[in-house]
Amino acid sequence: MTQKRWAKNFIRIEPYRAGEQPASDDVIKLNANENPYPPAPGVEAALRAVKTEGLRRYPQADGTDLRRALAAQHGLDPACVFVANGSDEVLALAFRSFFNSKKPVLFPDVTYSFYPVWCELFGIPYRRTALDGDFRIRPQDYAAENGGAVLANPNAPTGIALRPAEIERILSSNPASVVIVDEAYVDFGAASSVKLISKYENLLVTQSFSKGRALAGLRLGMAFGCAELIAVLGAVKNAFNSYPVDSVAAAAGIASLADGAYFARRAAQVIATRERTAAALHDMGFSMTDSAANFLFVTRAGLDAAALLAHLKGRGILVRHFSQPGIDAYLRITVGTDDEMRALLKAVSDFLREKEIR
Amino acid sequence: MTQKRWAKNFIRIEPYRAGEQPASDDVIKLNANENPYPPAPGVEAALRAVKTEGLRRYPQADGTDLRRALAAQHGLDPACVFVANGSDEVLALAFRSFFNSKKPVLFPDVTYSFYPVWCELFGIPYRRTALDGDFRIRPQDYAAENGGAVLANPNAPTGIALRPAEIERILSSNPASVVIVDEAYVDFGAASSVKLISKYENLLVTQSFSKGRALAGLRLGMAFGCAELIAVLGAVKNAFNSYPVDSVAAAAGIASLADGAYFARRAAQVIATRERTAAALHDMGFSMTDSAANFLFVTRAGLDAAALLAHLKGRGILVRHFSQPGIDAYLRITVGTDDEMRALLKAVSDFLREKEIR
Repeated sequence: MTQKRWAKNFIRIEPYRAGEQPASDDVIKLNANENPYPPAPGVEAALRAVKTEGLRRYPQADGTDLRRALAAQHGLDPACVFVANGSDEVLALAFRSFFNSKKPVLFPDVTYSFYPVWCELFGIPYRRTALDGDFRIRPQDYAAENGGAVLANPNAPTGIALRPAEIERILSSNPASVVIVDEAYVDFGAASSVKLISKYENLLVTQSFSKGRALAGLRLGMAFGCAELIAVLGAVKNAFNSYPVDSVAAAAGIASLADGAYFARRAAQVIATRERTAAALHDMGFSMTDSAANFLFVTRAGLDAAALLAHLKGRGILVRHFSQPGIDAYLRITVGTDDEMRALLKAVSDFLREKEIR
Repeated sequence: MTQKRWAKNFIRIEPYRAGEQPASDDVIKLNANENPYPPAPGVEAALRAVKTEGLRRYPQADGTDLRRALAAQHGLDPACVFVANGSDEVLALAFRSFFNSKKPVLFPDVTYSFYPVWCELFGIPYRRTALDGDFRIRPQDYAAENGGAVLANPNAPTGIALRPAEIERILSSNPASVVIVDEAYVDFGAASSVKLISKYENLLVTQSFSKGRALAGLRLGMAFGCAELIAVLGAVKNAFNSYPVDSVAAAAGIASLADGAYFARRAAQVIATRERTAAALHDMGFSMTDSAANFLFVTRAGLDAAALLAHLKGRGILVRHFSQPGIDAYLRITVGTDDEMRALLKAVSDFLREKEIR
């Protein structure tokens, strides 16, 4: 950090390092949990229908039309729906909105790495609770005194989902805290907690258009909760940036929601490919968590995960490795197309043969 | 505020009220300083060229291509350019990045009403300095001890611009603070301070695609400063939301920058209409500040500004009134097309006649 005088009031923060984004299209990109399939065909039509002239106007400040479409999908009042610039922004605003206690916010010690970053950014105390030996969240840990809790469900990078009864146990043991359930990966088989918001006023569920709806490039995220939670979130949004969702992204999001059949079909494809890939890796001696997400979290006895990462990169295949102790023997592999997974399996098999791992 | 137990850790914040956004296209909308003309024709082409399939990928985390285009426009290194979701987000992140002192951040008592909101949101102490009797910023006021300063140039809602020498005076009297110059309205005749960033490392200049470039609907804002300032801003952005600028908005922004001639022509049209409208209002007995922006800030002896606002609304013409003491006798009128301004002048003239104001 600089010693220049004008720099003395700079925030002290550790820059977050984003995952690798190759400029080339020649790689098999299984490192960012992106959808291997395009967005719903209606998105193309919605983009073509955008009236460029209208872009001189500000967008709807509260994303009214998009919120209505989301509300209709879930049978909710639009007052129970919030939208912003990706679920990362939704989560950041929610942390600022609801976690203002001297008691620590609780989240697992293996989970989305942005949670501690938001806590640092906003000066929120936090405590990481240990997963069990199988990387599972223990609901009883969240009965401890806290200033809030946040749970990725399915969790990342394990892909393991909590059962609805486990979520309810956490919600009922926290009558004095807001519990955020981050469902960025819920579209690939896990049970959503959105239906619980009418029962638990302390529940905020966040979701994303990035994964299941293949719209990562447009930055759309949403939250569901009782009207009181959503009103506070809206006020904080209005105190940060009045118009986080642009007109084009909103139109594309609405078009995506309109095609539920396409969404379901693509999710089913990803799930089927995930299960086939899991079986093939299992046959090659890998073990893995029980993923309900669009990625696999895999390891193998005798395997140097970082070496396999490098080998795959040499073959033009990007996957993700976390150097955090406890998970550094694992790789997180996004579920791509069947062709992409065949190339992955071939490269893994070659690596095992070259290294004489059996 | 609720008394429910789970609500006790909510942030206490006064919701910001956004300006009126009528659903109907039947109004003459002169209340949000939007551009009356469409974006550059290349924006249409850029939108049509978007590959929908590619939206499944995350956008460039640092807006690389858009930053390069902005850097080229100003003859800067891309390391001196930052982009985010509208200049409101740029400013919010800059406040969080650079204003971490126990001393107050300084800004005028009549200026963009979001500055105190960001200070409240981030717990930043601030002090409003009085404008002079002609609504002018007094540069000497910014030599006072401070934790930073922010100046809208041109200022809002007055439209008055500081001269470059006045900006330099403020910069040189603040060797130990970051000074933000908010140039949201710089495209309509004021001198930009971007050229000063090589001389003053404590200067951050923010700009917007919303006004001069007619892209309010896409949410694009930028900042220029020395590489060290921009790096801190980037780290804070990465600690909040890694991907604030979506792929489509970035492509549209690049297309807009490519057509400098269109931009200059439209700005000249707005300026010419502003001057014609100012002269006509002057002839009707109005006085006004010397606006270098795309709006006029007008008053008239014997006029009830709120009554004129209501009268105009009855005629389907929206303008802006601020109830803040000291400026509550004024209306802020966005410069629209010549036709829109003719309708405005007619409605104002009718009001004066009806009320027998002469």
